[in-house]
Amino acid sequence: MNATDLGLPVDVPSTALFTDHYELTMLQAALKGGTADRRSVFEVFTRRLPEGRRYGVVAGTGRVLDAVENFRFDSGVLGFLRQRHVVDEPTLDWLASYRFSGDVWGYPEGEVYFPGSPILRVEGSFAECVLLETVILSILNHDSAIAAAASRMASAAGTRPLIEMGARRTHELAAVAASRAAYVGGFTTTSDLAAGFRYGIPTVGTSAHAFTLLHDSERDAFQAQVNTLGRGTTLLVDTYDVAEAVRSAVDIAGPELGAVRIDSGDLLLVAHRVRQQLDELGATDTKIIVTSDLDEYAIASLAAAPVDAYGVGTQLVTGSGHPTCSMVYKLVARAESADPKAPLVPVAKKSTGGKTSIGGRKWAARRLDEDGTAEAEVIGTGAVPAELADRQLLVELIKGGQVIAREPLDAVRDRHAAVRANLPMSAIQLSRGEAVIPTEYV
Amino acid sequence: MNATDLGLPVDVPSTALFTDHYELTMLQAALKGGTADRRSVFEVFTRRLPEGRRYGVVAGTGRVLDAVENFRFDSGVLGFLRQRHVVDEPTLDWLASYRFSGDVWGYPEGEVYFPGSPILRVEGSFAECVLLETVILSILNHDSAIAAAASRMASAAGTRPLIEMGARRTHELAAVAASRAAYVGGFTTTSDLAAGFRYGIPTVGTSAHAFTLLHDSERDAFQAQVNTLGRGTTLLVDTYDVAEAVRSAVDIAGPELGAVRIDSGDLLLVAHRVRQQLDELGATDTKIIVTSDLDEYAIASLAAAPVDAYGVGTQLVTGSGHPTCSMVYKLVARAESADPKAPLVPVAKKSTGGKTSIGGRKWAARRLDEDGTAEAEVIGTGAVPAELADRQLLVELIKGGQVIAREPLDAVRDRHAAVRANLPMSAIQLSRGEAVIPTEYV
Repeated sequence: MNATDLGLPVDVPSTALFTDHYELTMLQAALKGGTADRRSVFEVFTRRLPEGRRYGVVAGTGRVLDAVENFRFDSGVLGFLRQRHVVDEPTLDWLASYRFSGDVWGYPEGEVYFPGSPILRVEGSFAECVLLETVILSILNHDSAIAAAASRMASAAGTRPLIEMGARRTHELAAVAASRAAYVGGFTTTSDLAAGFRYGIPTVGTSAHAFTLLHDSERDAFQAQVNTLGRGTTLLVDTYDVAEAVRSAVDIAGPELGAVRIDSGDLLLVAHRVRQQLDELGATDTKIIVTSDLDEYAIASLAAAPVDAYGVGTQLVTGSGHPTCSMVYKLVARAESADPKAPLVPVAKKSTGGKTSIGGRKWAARRLDEDGTAEAEVIGTGAVPAELADRQLLVELIKGGQVIAREPLDAVRDRHAAVRANLPMSAIQLSRGEAVIPTEYV
Repeated sequence: MNATDLGLPVDVPSTALFTDHYELTMLQAALKGGTADRRSVFEVFTRRLPEGRRYGVVAGTGRVLDAVENFRFDSGVLGFLRQRHVVDEPTLDWLASYRFSGDVWGYPEGEVYFPGSPILRVEGSFAECVLLETVILSILNHDSAIAAAASRMASAAGTRPLIEMGARRTHELAAVAASRAAYVGGFTTTSDLAAGFRYGIPTVGTSAHAFTLLHDSERDAFQAQVNTLGRGTTLLVDTYDVAEAVRSAVDIAGPELGAVRIDSGDLLLVAHRVRQQLDELGATDTKIIVTSDLDEYAIASLAAAPVDAYGVGTQLVTGSGHPTCSMVYKLVARAESADPKAPLVPVAKKSTGGKTSIGGRKWAARRLDEDGTAEAEVIGTGAVPAELADRQLLVELIKGGQVIAREPLDAVRDRHAAVRANLPMSAIQLSRGEAVIPTEYV
């Protein structure tokens, strides 16, 4: 694995320590107790959507495939586990040759999901599957949270482009994954160079208030920017007086000025004033970009305003109120013995205290109405009803340890747009509500 | 830089792309315009605390020092910038030899902060400082948000230990930083092996429900766990029936059983019942660990319950409602010219739309009352009043490009505990309120 394969500008020699301590102690106990080889089925799902949300967005699957492929215990990692007495020597020996050799099925990345949707299914020996819990959940819980917020913002923005600019508001590497998830959800560009490098997402940006303040006057700053970035650049016009800045901007760049950016104030009011001023100055093609503390509601409220593009930061990378999903990784079936032919037994937590789940390896299908609009998420453990056979959602991602379903990010992005378009209209309402289609168990 | 120096298990060859596109275009424009060498002062501060919070916690400073030291544009990065036409050839040449050569002062990591506190000050040429905006803010905004939540939870937990177990709820590398920040805020251990490897934080964990479900019976699972992890282990008792599980646990492990863990249900009620049952079974030294969707309020509500330790996940890594801080990186002063001896001019955004700030290089000091309790955060731009001279908060972190203030994480953790203890008592009330001390500008 090198930097271009995995999360740039970071070379991750192994993902094996993105793991909770208890996964290794369970492994040790299972190895010693003779249960480690029992064939097991784990599923990733959530019991509920974040409050008020109508649908979830599967994101991070591509990163999960990388993480599973790269999950190796090298000598440095083994030395750490030995020195800290995390597990015993036989377990360390077992880890040294670890390669995931099982199967993974899942919802294709960019699909939507609902409560109970089995968005990922991991099948293999208990030992090889139990170790993957944390890294799989980290990726899916984070990326899906961002993609869900991005998807709502993209609905609100309609055809206007969305710029992801939240890197400064989240962990520096979470930011790279957030740009990726935002792109899946419908964003068009990012400010984050690392996301451009790693995932090929188009990067954009021109200047901050600091650039204006560096100069002896705002005019000097605008002139310097136009001199080097050209008349098509975007000038930031709210450092001092917006009207004065717009006048200077058009005076210096002419009507070919690409855009002005407004980063503070009452955006609705200011956008209207600036549009009028630009038009009066003859800069009718100059665009207006707004970038101040936007979320999906603010974007929607600007739908009728003369705004050409939105830049979104904080609310995007924090999932617009829901920075994580509540996905869990649960054992749903396991063999009666270590015999590879032993039948699978459905299992589930039964305590009365809540957090119960449904045992058994599941299929999932989306039933459509006669217009092709989604009508229900249907989940079952037995045979798939004939009428749903071609509506099944799970696809094979890893077969016998080999990743077989890598795909370009643009394909994922297109899938999400297509799937969202097939949800009932109320899915894209921003108001709080229940999941837009019910989950039915058969 | 190798994996043990920087964020394990990740080798970050450079942090230079954790940067927003516009920082490079500003650099290009400043280089061409002749303003790039103007001596500049940038400050990191927040205009407000998250709603209802009484104080903030500075965290991530140590990671900032690593990131600045490691901020280099190697051939791969330069090739990307060239191919994508982010900047022109003279700018690429300038970047190729980039090394930060300026000075950084800041609040020591673990300190508390208030609205306006200049928690970091970066001084050097405009060109070398402007590039660091995003990576510095990413680290401080993320880590400080987690540390603030951790600090409140630690206050609520009193002397009981807190286990950080949120890796699965956040990006896999944000999780490592979150463990670090949680430790700074007062957590005692983590489930995240990567955090143990990278930062030496003690890691803990024993088993999940999957381990019980893997076995033919709960007794089999408990026996297997005790056989390999010993009688001092922690058994998870809420997979089926808690009372039955506690009986089995003590039957198998005897009164030497280390602890039982409860991960669902009404924790207050269940903890009381389990304590009574353990005592009746003679397991009076067996501890009770609770781990279900805890936050600082839930922890506080269990203060009178027979609970010995808390495990916290989601709410810790999402900042308990505030997953990011609103810290900004603002140019507050710059030289009149590129002459190294040119005097500094205070600068600040003035637009009426909000987001204004105070220009000038600032000092900060915390005034104490006669009992040694914090009374006010005093911030100024002129001479430091004599009575505050020994209460100054900013310390030198990087001098002429050299990091001079690395410190062990335990020292940071101890500092936070000591500083928090010197805040007015109301700081540790969980109820919403204003900043616990006022910010005064002189």
